[in-house]
Amino acid sequence: MSGWLAIAGLGPGDDRLVTPEVTATLAEATDVVGYIPYVARVAPRPGLTLHPSDNRVELDRARAALQMAAEGKRVVVVSSGDPGVFAMASAVFEALEGRPDWQTLDIRVLPGITAMLAAAAASGAPLGHDFCCINLSDNLKPWEVIETRLRHAARADFAMAFYNPRSASRPEGFTKALAVLREECGEGRLITFARAVSTPDQRIVTVALGEATPEMADMRTVVIVGNSATRRVGRWVYSPRSVR
Amino acid sequence: MSGWLAIAGLGPGDDRLVTPEVTATLAEATDVVGYIPYVARVAPRPGLTLHPSDNRVELDRARAALQMAAEGKRVVVVSSGDPGVFAMASAVFEALEGRPDWQTLDIRVLPGITAMLAAAAASGAPLGHDFCCINLSDNLKPWEVIETRLRHAARADFAMAFYNPRSASRPEGFTKALAVLREECGEGRLITFARAVSTPDQRIVTVALGEATPEMADMRTVVIVGNSATRRVGRWVYSPRSVR
Repeated sequence: MSGWLAIAGLGPGDDRLVTPEVTATLAEATDVVGYIPYVARVAPRPGLTLHPSDNRVELDRARAALQMAAEGKRVVVVSSGDPGVFAMASAVFEALEGRPDWQTLDIRVLPGITAMLAAAAASGAPLGHDFCCINLSDNLKPWEVIETRLRHAARADFAMAFYNPRSASRPEGFTKALAVLREECGEGRLITFARAVSTPDQRIVTVALGEATPEMADMRTVVIVGNSATRRVGRWVYSPRSVR
Repeated sequence: MSGWLAIAGLGPGDDRLVTPEVTATLAEATDVVGYIPYVARVAPRPGLTLHPSDNRVELDRARAALQMAAEGKRVVVVSSGDPGVFAMASAVFEALEGRPDWQTLDIRVLPGITAMLAAAAASGAPLGHDFCCINLSDNLKPWEVIETRLRHAARADFAMAFYNPRSASRPEGFTKALAVLREECGEGRLITFARAVSTPDQRIVTVALGEATPEMADMRTVVIVGNSATRRVGRWVYSPRSVR
């Protein structure tokens, strides 16, 4: 029996947003590995071992999963959203560096509905034109890189989606990000705070940048800043398809 | 019986990437509206009327769908990928402008697996760090806007995903885009051409920018350019999670 490793996206929360590919793959797995709240979304069954682990141990978790696959197990590493967007896929490939024995394993990435696209859908179509996607956490990069990217994104007139906008331990980063955005985009630019999208706690709020406060975001929030043409219609917000 | 309108994403092609939410919504529909090849992906059944239409009539199609929903029909507008990414959602919201009667309709956007995330998954994790997403078609915006965005994206060190890179009628845009990218990112930067992702015709090729030629892309291709840290490991390409 040869082992394999699948890196699967569970989507933003609603089970109706889990792809049949992911569901079928989980049904064949012997082991599921991931951050505690994501593993908790997988139903236990005989023959399946769940391996929940804490946050910020991504590389250790990736190595443990690869080791199990190398031993012949059928392993699914679960992420919320899409595993390729600020999630476990990069960590698994990083763990392959220097390990040619693992590089020949059967490894697949199974895409999922990433939070920004579920947030965009819940609010209208704010990402309907060119956009960018930035992880605002400064765990893995310096603030200066984030600020440079925000300024280029604004000058490119991209709509912007932000993941991990505001951690409890270092909330000041998002305050600085809002100041940069106001300076670059003006007070009138639309900003949407989409919290816990597709779950019973979902809350979507759109305001002008001048009215946005840091407390509107937490780590369960995806923030979407419109481009210069993004506008409201009815109860929705959308970015027109054309630049005129 | 009150009508509704759902704008649904069918994913990149493989039926296992269609969400259960979309499948369930299609099962309740009376009418399906969309571009010919996307409507062809919906199985006919008694009680369901299919309304395939040609490309480049997005606003007319949106208005026809809204009119049917206003008349009490249960209408699904289908897009490939995600309806909020260069697809029908923006067109539907645009069609609501000036129509307060339509703005009170039950309208929902159902997210789907967009092509760039399926392409990223098939090639590894090239979008595992900050990235942007640009429609290279100059149907709806001037080339100067595209060029400005490419330069800002390169200077922000975003990975980049391109939709509609090269049309048969105006192939020269992608030639110019490659020249801008070489100038900004250098010849060694990795570029992935992902054609017909998740279909039997899938073909993934990664080369250095200096080896990329315009003919490697067509309208069924998503192109992903790495950031300065994007690298190969084994048969995959990925962007590390950290900026050091």
